[in-house]
Amino acid sequence: MKILVTGAAGFLGARLVNALLADPPAGLTAIVAADTAAPRLSDPRVQPRVGTIADPAFARSLVDPDVRAVYHLAAVLSGGSEDDFDMGMAVNVDGTRGLLEACRASRGSPRFVFASTIAVFGGGLPPIVPEDLALTPQTSYGAAKAIAELLVAEYSRRGFVDGVACRIPTITVRPGKPNSALSSFVSGIIREPLAGIETACPVPLDTAMWISSPDVVTRNLAHAGRIDTAALGTRRSLNLPGLTVTAGNLLDSLHRVAGAEARGRVRIEHDERVVWAMRGWPAALDASRALGLGFIRDTDVDSIVQQYIDTQRTAG
Amino acid sequence: MKILVTGAAGFLGARLVNALLADPPAGLTAIVAADTAAPRLSDPRVQPRVGTIADPAFARSLVDPDVRAVYHLAAVLSGGSEDDFDMGMAVNVDGTRGLLEACRASRGSPRFVFASTIAVFGGGLPPIVPEDLALTPQTSYGAAKAIAELLVAEYSRRGFVDGVACRIPTITVRPGKPNSALSSFVSGIIREPLAGIETACPVPLDTAMWISSPDVVTRNLAHAGRIDTAALGTRRSLNLPGLTVTAGNLLDSLHRVAGAEARGRVRIEHDERVVWAMRGWPAALDASRALGLGFIRDTDVDSIVQQYIDTQRTAG
Repeated sequence: MKILVTGAAGFLGARLVNALLADPPAGLTAIVAADTAAPRLSDPRVQPRVGTIADPAFARSLVDPDVRAVYHLAAVLSGGSEDDFDMGMAVNVDGTRGLLEACRASRGSPRFVFASTIAVFGGGLPPIVPEDLALTPQTSYGAAKAIAELLVAEYSRRGFVDGVACRIPTITVRPGKPNSALSSFVSGIIREPLAGIETACPVPLDTAMWISSPDVVTRNLAHAGRIDTAALGTRRSLNLPGLTVTAGNLLDSLHRVAGAEARGRVRIEHDERVVWAMRGWPAALDASRALGLGFIRDTDVDSIVQQYIDTQRTAG
Repeated sequence: MKILVTGAAGFLGARLVNALLADPPAGLTAIVAADTAAPRLSDPRVQPRVGTIADPAFARSLVDPDVRAVYHLAAVLSGGSEDDFDMGMAVNVDGTRGLLEACRASRGSPRFVFASTIAVFGGGLPPIVPEDLALTPQTSYGAAKAIAELLVAEYSRRGFVDGVACRIPTITVRPGKPNSALSSFVSGIIREPLAGIETACPVPLDTAMWISSPDVVTRNLAHAGRIDTAALGTRRSLNLPGLTVTAGNLLDSLHRVAGAEARGRVRIEHDERVVWAMRGWPAALDASRALGLGFIRDTDVDSIVQQYIDTQRTAG
């Protein structure tokens, strides 16, 4: 059997491929690793494919009946989707539909793990967002992901795929450079000062957010490929577990874990576009169903910061 | 200014065109009446257009900057969408998106009244479905309409249109022949016996449903074109008011209004596909927001049956 990962050259995609290779399902022969740039993954079981998921022919070329699980992570992020509405729709909506159609054409009804987002929720929200609340996205990114969730549910109901949509929290701490996500700073205010770089926190310190570490998100996505979907019933979308923290909590943790000098490298400098986006996103979600299905969560903010430091040490 | 009505040759579309002509907005010069068959509307202000909304070029040809309001009623109904998944998606999802794109290209940000459905809800539902419950459609028709609602909301947020999605109850009593809606019988068990025709009720007598008369739905759709959308905030979808009745209530009303002979023409003969569909649809919705915005409701089931009899007399 084969597994397909889209967005495999991305930070999360590459981690997921490595996690799947380290603990492969029985009979795994290959991981098809698709992205717009060639994934740098040296394992001989990895089959890199370069193309855009917005091209239906490329999507079709990725899925054959031997593909038993698809992890669909390829996406235009929130900043990019807000800047270029058409590209966001083409990749996040049409790309997902094209991939679902490719699965349907394969007649294999593969597991389809979809990387959704907490940004499907927005506007006036209750303090803890239940899983069955109406999706009222306030960004084009969230709207496209909400539409894609409905597609995953309907293609599952039809038996074309066996879908699980995972609403991923804001991932902290991402390595590398800032990306086009409006929440990019949530990683930046930890990552940059640890690298000796001055940076700005674009939101008030009391801005609350729902975060998860890369390790936990990676393990949860892999887990979504293994759960018994009969337990989901017709509700194919899951609030993944997270941790509610404020920007201030993150900076306090940076202080505790890395010292006053690191903390001193972060100044407060509001960016109204980011403030607007963060205000619209939920700061706490009810993830009890996911926890009951064996999904995991981070324990505390300090261990999230420490996880990043440890990963960087290993990489260096 | 012009108004566009899609699905204008349909039962509801034709009624809506007539209602708009009878009480036109200031400055109305024409109603563009689009459908796959030519609408039979003799008023000189009606401009008939024949084509399918699934064709983006046809959609573009319908909207110019002078079109200030669009009533989008064209759709493949629930039975047809269940039978032909691709056609349902092409018309109900892509057709709606194409029309929204046409509005965007016109740069006029017209009012966009979308005929949605209570079938966006489904599965395990609370006794009274609140407006902010997650959309969990259990039919392809409901799924496509749910996706279209998200499109209407996002295109409104972007300022491309000024959208209002109306979740229409099951319309009773429709004249004419049975259609491809799984709820077609809800009209048939009144209409056929009144015409002296024997018919079957395909669900148990205690099956509850959320209904509205043609007059009330027509007036509510017209009203959706006139409300101040600032009052909607970011929540562009409305549960239209309805009446909860059982199949038994409808047949008792037939007895009261038309006599024992008419009632005697309806036998009970279960159709599992219809039983399944009706079980998945909500039997009562919270329509308080719509009522607060001036939408109206039917008072009782007998007046709904009487309305049909009166309309038939007028037509005859």
